[in-house]
Amino acid sequence: MTSVGFLGLGIMGARMALVLARSGRSVRVWNRSRDKSLRLLEEFEETKTPTCGAVVVANAAEEVRERCEMTFAMLADPKAARAVAKAYAGNDARAADGVRRTYVDCSTVDGAAGEETKAVMKSAGIDFLAAPVSGGWREAAKGELLFLCGGDGEAYDAASPHLEVMGAKKWLVGDSPTHAARAKLMLQIMMGNVVAALGEMHGLSERAGLDTDAVLEMLSHSAMGSPLTTSKGKLMRARNFSPNFQVYLQQKDLRLALDLGDELEYPMPISAATNSQYLRAKSLGHANSDFSAVAVAYTNERAPGTTN
Amino acid sequence: MTSVGFLGLGIMGARMALVLARSGRSVRVWNRSRDKSLRLLEEFEETKTPTCGAVVVANAAEEVRERCEMTFAMLADPKAARAVAKAYAGNDARAADGVRRTYVDCSTVDGAAGEETKAVMKSAGIDFLAAPVSGGWREAAKGELLFLCGGDGEAYDAASPHLEVMGAKKWLVGDSPTHAARAKLMLQIMMGNVVAALGEMHGLSERAGLDTDAVLEMLSHSAMGSPLTTSKGKLMRARNFSPNFQVYLQQKDLRLALDLGDELEYPMPISAATNSQYLRAKSLGHANSDFSAVAVAYTNERAPGTTN
Amino acid sequence: MTSVGFLGLGIMGARMALVLARSGRSVRVWNRSRDKSLRLLEEFEETKTPTCGAVVVANAAEEVRERCEMTFAMLADPKAARAVAKAYAGNDARAADGVRRTYVDCSTVDGAAGEETKAVMKSAGIDFLAAPVSGGWREAAKGELLFLCGGDGEAYDAASPHLEVMGAKKWLVGDSPTHAARAKLMLQIMMGNVVAALGEMHGLSERAGLDTDAVLEMLSHSAMGSPLTTSKGKLMRARNFSPNFQVYLQQKDLRLALDLGDELEYPMPISAATNSQYLRAKSLGHANSDFSAVAVAYTNERAPGTTN
Amino acid sequence: MTSVGFLGLGIMGARMALVLARSGRSVRVWNRSRDKSLRLLEEFEETKTPTCGAVVVANAAEEVRERCEMTFAMLADPKAARAVAKAYAGNDARAADGVRRTYVDCSTVDGAAGEETKAVMKSAGIDFLAAPVSGGWREAAKGELLFLCGGDGEAYDAASPHLEVMGAKKWLVGDSPTHAARAKLMLQIMMGNVVAALGEMHGLSERAGLDTDAVLEMLSHSAMGSPLTTSKGKLMRARNFSPNFQVYLQQKDLRLALDLGDELEYPMPISAATNSQYLRAKSLGHANSDFSAVAVAYTNERAPGTTN
Repeated sequence: MTSVGFLGLGIMGARMALVLARSGRSVRVWNRSRDKSLRLLEEFEETKTPTCGAVVVANAAEEVRERCEMTFAMLADPKAARAVAKAYAGNDARAADGVRRTYVDCSTVDGAAGEETKAVMKSAGIDFLAAPVSGGWREAAKGELLFLCGGDGEAYDAASPHLEVMGAKKWLVGDSPTHAARAKLMLQIMMGNVVAALGEMHGLSERAGLDTDAVLEMLSHSAMGSPLTTSKGKLMRARNFSPNFQVYLQQKDLRLALDLGDELEYPMPISAATNSQYLRAKSLGHANSDFSAVAVAYTNERAPGTTN
Repeated sequence: MTSVGFLGLGIMGARMALVLARSGRSVRVWNRSRDKSLRLLEEFEETKTPTCGAVVVANAAEEVRERCEMTFAMLADPKAARAVAKAYAGNDARAADGVRRTYVDCSTVDGAAGEETKAVMKSAGIDFLAAPVSGGWREAAKGELLFLCGGDGEAYDAASPHLEVMGAKKWLVGDSPTHAARAKLMLQIMMGNVVAALGEMHGLSERAGLDTDAVLEMLSHSAMGSPLTTSKGKLMRARNFSPNFQVYLQQKDLRLALDLGDELEYPMPISAATNSQYLRAKSLGHANSDFSAVAVAYTNERAPGTTN
Repeated sequence: MTSVGFLGLGIMGARMALVLARSGRSVRVWNRSRDKSLRLLEEFEETKTPTCGAVVVANAAEEVRERCEMTFAMLADPKAARAVAKAYAGNDARAADGVRRTYVDCSTVDGAAGEETKAVMKSAGIDFLAAPVSGGWREAAKGELLFLCGGDGEAYDAASPHLEVMGAKKWLVGDSPTHAARAKLMLQIMMGNVVAALGEMHGLSERAGLDTDAVLEMLSHSAMGSPLTTSKGKLMRARNFSPNFQVYLQQKDLRLALDLGDELEYPMPISAATNSQYLRAKSLGHANSDFSAVAVAYTNERAPGTTN
Repeated sequence: MTSVGFLGLGIMGARMALVLARSGRSVRVWNRSRDKSLRLLEEFEETKTPTCGAVVVANAAEEVRERCEMTFAMLADPKAARAVAKAYAGNDARAADGVRRTYVDCSTVDGAAGEETKAVMKSAGIDFLAAPVSGGWREAAKGELLFLCGGDGEAYDAASPHLEVMGAKKWLVGDSPTHAARAKLMLQIMMGNVVAALGEMHGLSERAGLDTDAVLEMLSHSAMGSPLTTSKGKLMRARNFSPNFQVYLQQKDLRLALDLGDELEYPMPISAATNSQYLRAKSLGHANSDFSAVAVAYTNERAPGTTN
């Protein structure tokens, strides 16, 4: 029983499973839409990259559970994550075969959804680790994701060799899925605030008659420069807001962060001001633009084809 | 007349002059306090670094003007910068010797002070370039400063070979000292906002029971991570606020930025919220702490030895 | 069947029912705790105010429905409001006696809870009006409440003669309970922002060495002065925060307002900044203080007996 | 020497002098433009209101000083206030005639200008009181201004009988012109914040589909209602922004308030957020609209005839 299971073959999951297979692991995959799983296999052929391990497509999530001690899941949203976890755990969960299993959910879900999946696994006698990622499909394809884990040390240790293949770094930030979800939120807070502050600075440098190209290059070379300020600054300057991570998603994360602040009696005046700017961008027709479109909150430029 | 002049031998200026001398240039230095100039020379001896060029201490700023075609100045504040520029230009300025001279002021001054110096030089028939820097004494010592220049192309071209010795990068952001001052302000806006957002995130991660060390490491490895977030995050976690760049200076820069916004009818709600947090840190006794002490605005921790 | 029903005899409800009875109406009251209903009757005796109408205590909410064409409810929270509405509507609701009944809920509930009660009444064939109030027990006792109604015109017209007895003013702000809940929220937005701005001004006038008594009196006589700024200003000056309407309730209302803003893509930067100040007051131990305690967000004074 | 002096016969001053004359006082007036003074006299004739006292037009400010023990000044701005005060004090100021004189400046000036006038009067041996007003020309005409005084008790007592004729209320808020200027600023802080919060609430009630007329009427009848919220609410609803007190003036006052906060290390996050909204209104072409036009910061409606 040396196969590794992988549930969910979307933009991220397919690449993560591919990386596992190329490392020499035998990977048993499953996806709710079977066609997608097959497309993944075809992709293996097309790229002609030899996959040392075998990739086998399972008919059901439960089948993956039966065949694998270690299973990873990567689903699009909390609802899908919960549904797949339940399908995997099955109804006859406690009819144990004496094998110790670990289920690692890499989906981005809120703390409550994570705790629910943890409870499902606990009652099925399965170890659980929440391991949401930071990074997009490019990082997934290169095995350079960051894993923000919440759970107990044993599950973390068991998952670690595999996480190290799929990711550049991993951290155990606390002992529950709630901790993992909150750690992910911390990164979103910084992401939202840094890009909005960049928009505020960029708009001012335009208004002040500066060479904005030089200003952005200066920033890149300064101690405040980061890959994000460099890439998003260019998009703002070019008014190119084709979506990578959408305004509405960033605003939703800021709202979650502000709700957490409310819950913990922790005022967040900067994030609150920032949230207003993403809302303004939404109200200007940019809900589905890349979140660098927060820059329009400073210029009042509506999204093309939208009206007041 | 191949010497390069250098006026102002403070923490920054002494190192910049040293870097010029080590490049093989003959440097004629002057400082208002003559002792300081001599200490600089002693430092040359002590470090035993061979200075290819000769360093000559002048008795007066005017003497530097007479001997050098290209002169750099690096003073502590606008008042000193203006005084030294006037001393350099002298009273008999228009008694020309036919030599074309360039004066490059690297001091950080507001736009008005820069324009005043430009006017002084213009009436003395001297080319002028405002070239404030980004970076501290470490960057100065290694010749890795960033120069944000404002002025006409000829002065910029004349100064460039020397700027390239003292700095890692240089930009011409506009045609006036006001442009240079504003470009510098752009960096301060980002610096203030990024560090305050970091404080807001860090305090929340403490309150939320996360492993804050792991969270900060995560941030360093993410696309939002920068040298600044990495270094200031560590200081916040350790409550080590020994000053590098003080709270009161960062707050003053944010106030200047907000004043510029007012002047240009440009709302800056995020910087305004951020400014309130630096003010709060000041009111908690941290005016002279490092500006990473903005973190106390979220914890209400007073500076040791101060009372409400 | 000329009795008016009244469900819920709390601090507000008892007084509202009393006002109805004194107007000459026969009032049939009910409360979940029967003792409270009896105490209300005793209060009638004690005050020696002749109650022209009779007050009859019912054994069940359903009994009130059977005997009255018009029934008012005033419950403490959305949960109680929903439970009492269901008890009133009963299981055999559609066993109609041909009488047209109207149910008017004066409780402060969110739009969703109001819509749910509306649905319960609709399926029971009962007309419904949401009529949350502005004002406290003093206004209730004097028949000077303000009613913010949401529902159809017929229910509003039927309720009007009674609302005019219990209140000084009434408005039909829209055709649904959601409209009524939102109208109430509009008042809470102003209440929260005006009192927090007062706290910001008051703290500054203290810091600036002004005669704060004179400043508050000035404000009372100015065009910005309102009953609220006058009363809350005095409490702030005296640091008397014994609760009338608590900090945690005002903060909760601001959060609801900000959530509504998010839902409608409407940025609310001022309310967001204000919300942070109420949160700060909470974090200083003032969750249960009167909401004028938002003033401590500017002085960092903790609630007595609480620790950092 | 029973005449009262009055310097400055603008929109406010002419009416204040008129009110003094009608009270039976002999008023000696002066204005930099002599025509204006004459027009004032004509107005006396036209209105046919018997002026018990005589109104005499002086040729110079110094002449007023020679003839009156008590003189009031009402000028348009700090520059005019300083110039008139100097003209009044004269060069031969110390050539005393043994008469004790009091000079009361009712102009709205910053603390520094007030302190300068105080010093001018002190060196001329003249008592001084700063007494800026709250209220417009309507209140001036009816003798219903509010006087916010800063100075010593004797000057205040000497001026009081006259202030009581011109005003409805007066307060001594501190012992210097700076105190008076700051007290005036306190009212401006409340004015700016209350009207901007009203704009935020009003825009949301429009967006939420409420009957905005009912909502504003509700507010007027609530404890938060003030003459200002009632009048400005109607203007916002009607998009009638013909100027009474302009956006640019209110924004300037908020900037002064924020500068005072900076000086006193006092964070003002709500006023800072509010200031951004007035700036936004300015950037939408409303600098010269009435300050109720802050409502456009929520609707992005540009001033007619202006372009982006």
